[in-house]
Order: sequence, then structure tokens, then C-alpha cells
Amino acid sequence: MTTQQLTEQILSKKSFLCIGLDVDLNKIPKHLYATEDPIFEFNKAIIDATHDLCVAYKPNTAFYEAYGVKGWISLEKTIQYINNNYPEIFTIADAKRGDIGNTSTMYAKAFFEDLGFDSVTVAPYMGQDSVEPFLEFKDKHTILLALTSNSGSKDFQTLSYNDKTLFENVLATSKKWKNSENLMYVVGATKAEYFEQIRKIIPDNFLLVPGVGAQGGSLKEVCQFGLNKNVGLLINSSRGIIYASTEENFAQKSREEAFAIQQEMQAFL
Amino acid sequence: MTTQQLTEQILSKKSFLCIGLDVDLNKIPKHLYATEDPIFEFNKAIIDATHDLCVAYKPNTAFYEAYGVKGWISLEKTIQYINNNYPEIFTIADAKRGDIGNTSTMYAKAFFEDLGFDSVTVAPYMGQDSVEPFLEFKDKHTILLALTSNSGSKDFQTLSYNDKTLFENVLATSKKWKNSENLMYVVGATKAEYFEQIRKIIPDNFLLVPGVGAQGGSLKEVCQFGLNKNVGLLINSSRGIIYASTEENFAQKSREEAFAIQQEMQAFL
Repeated sequence: MTTQQLTEQILSKKSFLCIGLDVDLNKIPKHLYATEDPIFEFNKAIIDATHDLCVAYKPNTAFYEAYGVKGWISLEKTIQYINNNYPEIFTIADAKRGDIGNTSTMYAKAFFEDLGFDSVTVAPYMGQDSVEPFLEFKDKHTILLALTSNSGSKDFQTLSYNDKTLFENVLATSKKWKNSENLMYVVGATKAEYFEQIRKIIPDNFLLVPGVGAQGGSLKEVCQFGLNKNVGLLINSSRGIIYASTEENFAQKSREEAFAIQQEMQAFL
Repeated sequence: MTTQQLTEQILSKKSFLCIGLDVDLNKIPKHLYATEDPIFEFNKAIIDATHDLCVAYKPNTAFYEAYGVKGWISLEKTIQYINNNYPEIFTIADAKRGDIGNTSTMYAKAFFEDLGFDSVTVAPYMGQDSVEPFLEFKDKHTILLALTSNSGSKDFQTLSYNDKTLFENVLATSKKWKNSENLMYVVGATKAEYFEQIRKIIPDNFLLVPGVGAQGGSLKEVCQFGLNKNVGLLINSSRGIIYASTEENFAQKSREEAFAIQQEMQAFL
């Protein structure tokens, strides 16, 4: 998918909501345990109930790997279900991968070709030759960790190197890499004070923003400094939407949560 | 496995060799294609031929994920084969994971409990609360990326902050984390000039060292500055050993390569 197609979808749905499919078997409705693949059945119900209110789904691979081969099958079925039924949706493998050159190519093939995701999250620590293999794939997107929403982000990301923080170095340096137009960045909503500065460095790229809601980030502040001419924002919510209820009508409840966020977003577009 | 058990194994085998099981279907002997699971059959042959010359095996997960569910099954069979037949061997999931707290716990469970690895490689970018969930597992080890062997390591890892590089900050900061005795570190052999300084910061931890051989690192220099009272080094070789031949006797050839390295290592112990 091109970024232009993503922007068109956002404007058409009046939403820049991304729903995180972080499925923990201990948190899903008990009646799904009777099905052959509870994780996939859960995802399918959530997707069917919310696909017109969001523009992206983001399974975090940790939640699938934790169930071994069965989990990987659930992940495959989930991405296939989205691609077959809602091809307009932007899909994100939240995998935070990154390795030396030829190994990153293997990861890129796994997520872009074998599984068919539009994008994958990547950690920047190993630098240029660990990220560029992901950038080579046309109309696929690499979402680089820049400033994350967790408390540990202060350990290294906000330390200053040559008058620039590490995450500013990541933004400025990665801009110079080959095919950098395929880059997006993770910036936590809990860091609203940094958005203005971030937009000075990367005015055009999309930002994937976790941390609105439960983690305390403000949608208003993120929009004030984060929006750009292509919208340029994907705001992620996971638990607040997918675990809205553990009753049989859980999918309807998740729709209501997604609808409330979409309505808020509409006002900022 | 405890680090003491690892050291005992090293002294008994007179080897601190780790063999990287980075299996690319395009590079393995063609006669294995006729088997049901060529990746596993390849690994099994290599393991049977080399287990007394090395102390650790390190499958890089990228090479398995690239084959989807089938690859994940090959990975499961490989780790089970090692654990069942050669329980003295230290196993490393080279996965370079790392995410916010509860998500890192899912990864830790996937690799330590579901798959049964002794250790996993983790990227430090997200800081303390992304790494500590891995450190909670008793007798399991978290191998943090510090200074990697690739060219991109200069992009961020060697930037200076208050007279300390990022990777030195990673070493010094992570030492203070809870259960930090379960930490090991990745330091590339191509960075021999840094080993002396690294040992001043972390005298006691094991280092996992890629980059000897093909990438140009010198075993002698790494040993000169890297060895400590518990040996404290695991030197990885992947392609040089596992792709020594594509003939039917490939496993015997890999044994010869491993033997040559073990002989070199013996002299430094």
C-alpha cells in the first residue's frame, strides 16, 4: 500500500485509528475457548466489528509467538483474513525486529512476502545496514522505533549526543538512508512535548503513536503538533478497544470504544 | 543453565565455540530436499557432528520465520533435539527482541518456557522495563546487544554522550537493573580495540562474540582482552562451519571446521 492510499483511506473513514491485536488468551471471552482457534476467532470478530472505524490493525508478534506454532498459525490466519476481506486496511506487524544485513532481509521477507503485511516495526540500534534491507520493498513500510511510550525510553533514547538526543539522531540519520521515503516512526503519545521538535526533523513521515488512553497520552496534544499535510498520524489503541468486554457481545462493545475514538478523531481532521 | 555450568562445560570441552544455525534452504546440500523437514535434518546432522567441539548453538530466528509456520516447526524440533540429546549444551535464541514490559514477558515465555532456550538476544533501545522481564527467569540469560559487528554499529552505538558512548551507557546502565547477573552482552569481534574498555565496565559477564573469521575479527585479540576468570567468552561462527560443504559429507566437513577453531581456542584457555 502507498502512503497516498493510506491517507485516502483516513480521509474517507475520517479516522486514523490503528487497533492493536495483542491477544492474551487469559483476557478473551471464555466462550471462545470452545472454538478450534480462539485467538483467530477473537480477532475475526473484532475485525468484522471495527474495520470501518479504523484504518490499520497491528498484531504484536510477541502475543502469537508465546503460543508457539499454534500462535504463528493464528497470526497467519489473521493477516490473511484482513487482506482477503478488507484489503484497504493498512497492516502492521509489531515485531520490533532488526539484525545484520542479510538477516534483516530474511525478516523482511517473512513479514512482507510470506505473511503479507504492509509494514513492520524495526529497532534502530544496529544502524543503517540493519534497516535498509526492509526499505527495499516497494510499497512496504518500515516503522522505526524513535521515542517509545514506556518509562525505559529515558534510559537511552533521550540522552543527548552532540546536542541531540539519541532519538533525534535516529530521526535525522535515518532520513539519509536509501528509500527513506518508506520510513515511518514510532513516537509515544506520552511524549507530547517532543512532537513539535520531531515534526521539524521529519515533517512528512507518518508517525505510529501508541500510548493514548490507558498510558495517559492526549489525542489533542498529539494532533496539535503531529498532524501534517498527509495527516501523518496513526494512533494505536489496543487493550482499551479489544478488551472492552468479556461477554458474548464483546465485539459490539469493542465497536463502541472504536466509534468513540473515531468521533474524537473526526474533529481533528 | 547456570553460568557456572557453562564455564564447566567450556573447561571440560576446551572450547568456547558457539555455532550459529542460520539455515538458508538455498545453501544446504541438495540431497536434503527429499526429506520431510530439510532444515531440521540439516541442523540434526550438524549438531550430531559438532556437539563435542562446541558449547552452544545459536539459531537466528529470522531464518526460521522466513519459512512461516514450517520454519517455526523446524526451530521447535531443533531446540528439542538439542535439549533431549545434548542437555549440557547452552542454547541461544538469536531473536533480538524487546518491547514494553508485559510484551517482553510474552517473548520471554515464548523463548524460555515454550521453546526451552537457555538464553535470548535482546535489543536495549527501549530501556529498563523492556529488558527486566527477561531477567526474571531463574537460570535463563538475556544477551543484550552492546556493540555489534556490522558497519551500522557506528550510526548510534559509538556516538558519545558525556564522554561515554551509547554502548558504554548500555553496559553501565544495564548493570544496575534487577537480576543483572543474568545479563550477557553481544560484542562484535571486529571491535577488538574496545574489549579492554568493555571489560573495565563489565568484568564478570559473558560476552557473545560474532564476527571472528569471515567478518575479519581476530580470535587472539578478542581473547587477549575478553577472557575473564570464568572464561566469559562465547565466540560464534555460523557460515564458516555450517556451509563448509554442500556434498553428502557436509556434516563431517563442518566438524573439521569446528575442530580447527576448537584447537585454536584450546591454546587460549
